[in-house]
Amino acid sequence: MGRNKYYFGVDVGGTVIKIGLVDRSANVIEKASFLTKHYSSKRKIITQLSRAVMDITKSVGRRPIGGLGVGMPGLVDFDSGIVHNLTNMKGWKEVKLSKILKEKTGLPVLVDNDVNAITQGEFIFGAGKGAENMICIALGTGIGGGIIINRRLYRGSSFSAGEIGHFSIDKNGPLCNCGSYGCLERYIGNRYFTNYVAEKIQTRNEKTKILELADNDFFKITPEIIAGAAKQGDRLACEVWREFALKLGIVTAGMINFLNPDTIVIAGGLSMAGRALFKPLGETLEKFTLKNALAKVKIKQAELKENSGIIGAASLFFSL
Amino acid sequence: MGRNKYYFGVDVGGTVIKIGLVDRSANVIEKASFLTKHYSSKRKIITQLSRAVMDITKSVGRRPIGGLGVGMPGLVDFDSGIVHNLTNMKGWKEVKLSKILKEKTGLPVLVDNDVNAITQGEFIFGAGKGAENMICIALGTGIGGGIIINRRLYRGSSFSAGEIGHFSIDKNGPLCNCGSYGCLERYIGNRYFTNYVAEKIQTRNEKTKILELADNDFFKITPEIIAGAAKQGDRLACEVWREFALKLGIVTAGMINFLNPDTIVIAGGLSMAGRALFKPLGETLEKFTLKNALAKVKIKQAELKENSGIIGAASLFFSL
Repeated sequence: MGRNKYYFGVDVGGTVIKIGLVDRSANVIEKASFLTKHYSSKRKIITQLSRAVMDITKSVGRRPIGGLGVGMPGLVDFDSGIVHNLTNMKGWKEVKLSKILKEKTGLPVLVDNDVNAITQGEFIFGAGKGAENMICIALGTGIGGGIIINRRLYRGSSFSAGEIGHFSIDKNGPLCNCGSYGCLERYIGNRYFTNYVAEKIQTRNEKTKILELADNDFFKITPEIIAGAAKQGDRLACEVWREFALKLGIVTAGMINFLNPDTIVIAGGLSMAGRALFKPLGETLEKFTLKNALAKVKIKQAELKENSGIIGAASLFFSL
Repeated sequence: MGRNKYYFGVDVGGTVIKIGLVDRSANVIEKASFLTKHYSSKRKIITQLSRAVMDITKSVGRRPIGGLGVGMPGLVDFDSGIVHNLTNMKGWKEVKLSKILKEKTGLPVLVDNDVNAITQGEFIFGAGKGAENMICIALGTGIGGGIIINRRLYRGSSFSAGEIGHFSIDKNGPLCNCGSYGCLERYIGNRYFTNYVAEKIQTRNEKTKILELADNDFFKITPEIIAGAAKQGDRLACEVWREFALKLGIVTAGMINFLNPDTIVIAGGLSMAGRALFKPLGETLEKFTLKNALAKVKIKQAELKENSGIIGAASLFFSL
């Protein structure tokens, strides 16, 4: 964990795989990325990834490299470096990723769940700096979470801690991919949320900036657009963010009551909605959280932006 | 923390205060108790409590006593031994209980929340033995919780961790004492549950063993009676336990997903319902918990019975 060393951070996603070399101050000094779909198998992805690591290693010359951290979108045994399975990428079952990458690159390798990596990154370099106990909530296609307890990442008894997206907020709600019903993610996961908004616009038949910003194409509605419309004061956009915040807030309040953390970090694409999300979220927390626990906790927006996955993965090597 | 020493455990409740001397194998070798309402102020309670401790100390002769552990029904700063406030006992605000008891008894004193004490007791001597990460859920007048992380009691950033009773399971539900709405405790806390059952019987106007066991007096219905009726196969009793289990189970499933513990201990009076509660609870968890997390966790009934508060409080001095 040499102070002058550099660490690779790899952010594996269903769409893009990003690789970056990171210094101990979280500067990404060299970067590469490729589209996941261009590689037809996990073997080819791993080969391409290793090649990118070796290319960057050459290009940066004699800089000492301390290790390679990888964030994977699924269940990972951090201790053994085995990827048990991935949510949206087929063929990744019981892959000894740490061992394989170590052989291919000659570097020490740490593999973890991607949200754990982001949590560690925010804790060491971002909005969670100085936290003792923290929950990081990642809002994206999935709704994930990471937990810091006593200034260390807490992974749980079988490496799946932090799953807040599958908290059922309506026992009679719609079936979720996970097999349960009415999961939080089933309402506020990226696609579910945008679909909900599109349907609401159609049902209401009300003029809204959302549709204007999406070129009047329902399929072009994104969380960014809904956020943009809310920023312009659009009534319907503000309303759907309030609904989003209420659902997220009830579960977050429960987690604050339960874990009594000092910090909550809201990360992921949808956190960029800013005030349209954070204001009603604050109101929901005010209503549903125990006074003592609420008084102690700070609700923050993630600070690491487009490189959060890379920095997080590299920071698996760092502890305070 | 001498292996041959004895420790006092004090279980302070709104109804009864129990004092016991406990050995390192969780045997309660001497015991006393008094009714809380017989003492008109906190000063008198503390005096009576100290007197009981001194009496037992004398009666057991030359046995070495290592300390005095106290479980209080409310918010306690464990580090300073200050009781911030108690839920059902007036006048207890910012009481330096640890300091006062130390002066009165000459013993080292540890003061904690009562559910934390029970959690520690179950972890060291009861159903949680061998756990690495565990949640103890105490079902009583209130619905409380305690958390063990990495084989240590986790108290949170302001000593209120474990509060699962105030998870809102219905945002439009009834107002709770805590100021929030639709809290779990508001449905399955002792009194709320028995009231619900009494009302259900009245509405249904259906023959039930519950009423028979309560001498046809709605005010005599207790959780024990509802449990007894369920054991005899009473339809309505089984039904209300299923409803109880569904509400408890949804929140418990969420906590298992979130913390990924290896052990859940269900403690408190209502846990004695046995199969009438545990069977539908298991079914609810099956439905609402992520497979990986569910596969790892054992759901257990608390093992320490009538002395759980005393043993738990004494065990605040013990760690593994």
